[in-house]
Amino acid sequence: MSEPFSRRLTAALRSKKSALVVGLDPRVTELPSTLLDRYRAEKGLTLEAAAEAVLEFNKGLIEALHDIVVAVKPQLAFYECLGLPGLAAFRATVNYAKEHSLLVITDGKRNDIGSSVAGYADAYLGETRLGEASYCAFPSDSLTVNPYLGSDGIIPLVERCQKYQKGIFVLVKTSNPSGTEIQNLDCGSEKVYEVVGRLCHEWGQSSLDSDGYSAVGAVVGATYPAEAAKLRKIMPHAYFLVPGFGAQGAKPEDVVACFNTDGLGAVVNSAREIIFGFNKRGGDYRTAARSAALEAQKSINKALREEHKCAW
Amino acid sequence: MSEPFSRRLTAALRSKKSALVVGLDPRVTELPSTLLDRYRAEKGLTLEAAAEAVLEFNKGLIEALHDIVVAVKPQLAFYECLGLPGLAAFRATVNYAKEHSLLVITDGKRNDIGSSVAGYADAYLGETRLGEASYCAFPSDSLTVNPYLGSDGIIPLVERCQKYQKGIFVLVKTSNPSGTEIQNLDCGSEKVYEVVGRLCHEWGQSSLDSDGYSAVGAVVGATYPAEAAKLRKIMPHAYFLVPGFGAQGAKPEDVVACFNTDGLGAVVNSAREIIFGFNKRGGDYRTAARSAALEAQKSINKALREEHKCAW
Repeated sequence: MSEPFSRRLTAALRSKKSALVVGLDPRVTELPSTLLDRYRAEKGLTLEAAAEAVLEFNKGLIEALHDIVVAVKPQLAFYECLGLPGLAAFRATVNYAKEHSLLVITDGKRNDIGSSVAGYADAYLGETRLGEASYCAFPSDSLTVNPYLGSDGIIPLVERCQKYQKGIFVLVKTSNPSGTEIQNLDCGSEKVYEVVGRLCHEWGQSSLDSDGYSAVGAVVGATYPAEAAKLRKIMPHAYFLVPGFGAQGAKPEDVVACFNTDGLGAVVNSAREIIFGFNKRGGDYRTAARSAALEAQKSINKALREEHKCAW
Repeated sequence: MSEPFSRRLTAALRSKKSALVVGLDPRVTELPSTLLDRYRAEKGLTLEAAAEAVLEFNKGLIEALHDIVVAVKPQLAFYECLGLPGLAAFRATVNYAKEHSLLVITDGKRNDIGSSVAGYADAYLGETRLGEASYCAFPSDSLTVNPYLGSDGIIPLVERCQKYQKGIFVLVKTSNPSGTEIQNLDCGSEKVYEVVGRLCHEWGQSSLDSDGYSAVGAVVGATYPAEAAKLRKIMPHAYFLVPGFGAQGAKPEDVVACFNTDGLGAVVNSAREIIFGFNKRGGDYRTAARSAALEAQKSINKALREEHKCAW
């Protein structure tokens, strides 16, 4: 792990010719029923059974997709609601993804200040030191974070990113309809999300890699392509993590604005359409996920080429 | 649990004549050394040893403080950085506090949309359903949350609050210096934090209890008393969770603006000065914590009486 996170992300994009991230959002009620049934038969209807089914589901997805997605993005809420067994499944998922050379973007939207945010940084990006020993609780490559508390909440994370070659993605312009309530407030000549974009740009200045990308990325929804284009100019050095593609309605041509002209600078998340692809496509969930992911990869790459943004 | 969270909070304020919340922020490096040494001797320098020391520390604090604080506020970052053993200690702490009739405000500053935020709601406020079985992963009474994603991120939490008689505290105006970077942006005639205050007021309208308090509280730092006074008017029905008292510099007279004239409507968090009080005061950490908490309680009540705000 001698390279900055942004370099590792760029290398993965180039070698896989893919900007696709798969969201590992394993809602228990939507898992393939045979999978849950097997663990239920063993352990009853317990959190342990659900968590083991989730882990097997994730492992199957990782095996089916590791060569066509650059990263997995586990959404912590789906693991936390399964309690300690759920968090054990999360940790095992992280490790399994890394064994398959996938980057892990933990979607926790964490935020706090001082020693609290340092605690999150230790938990997901750095290490917890106990005397001469040290441990990483949930060793991810990157973490999503929320900027509402300002620099006090971000700088400690950036320091850990630089020390451990990790990354963060700061929520800037989210993909959901009501994201506008705060993010699109007019403040003078700019909207709140543009101010946040400028802050991210500053936070990233100390961690530029040799391609000019920083450890401070941004979450920018594909559902607002005009805003994404503005943010692309405000934050030329930031990798964008782009939600909203697929199930949330954004099309391949909508995500293009999130990329730089070098074909880099963005990764596109898709969860439901891939991981629960078997609902539409039938058959084994892994085969369906692979088909859905290949289609997504192809459609994004086509849109990038049409805009002359694909230099891979 | 037949009463809304806000009613239970009011009842605790009245019966204990205290508005004090103790922050359970057990930084491992600051625990009494004898405590950590004992578990280290048993288990080595492991996350398990650290988590057991944390749990014993918290239990001692709960026993020493349960009659003079209305709630405990565990900061999740300090448990997450200890991995699964840390989260087991968090869960045991929650249960131990409830056995001692304390309300639990889990400080997680969670935020997301759709089924993700529903997952957090299930994990901390509601229950995770698995067929006919249901479990609450980390059964808290209330959760701190971040509003940057707008109503989509809050409404699902409010629904769970109403169903399960729980509460949320939304970050509105935080106590840290750089909170101003986003929260104090001017947007027309108001600042961002005032707009967020108005949103909280709306989000709370459907859950007013018989005293007029809602399930939607707000985090309002004592370090900005003028802003707190404005927010008190914007959100008359919200309980304020007030950080910044004590170690962060706010004085008893600064927190008074956060209360309504009925002496209700706010609870004041203090962590470091209480739980690590032994550093200044010497002696057993529990005795020192109790002395520090009694002093804080007394000084807040005195300031409230001087402003004729104490009707208990």
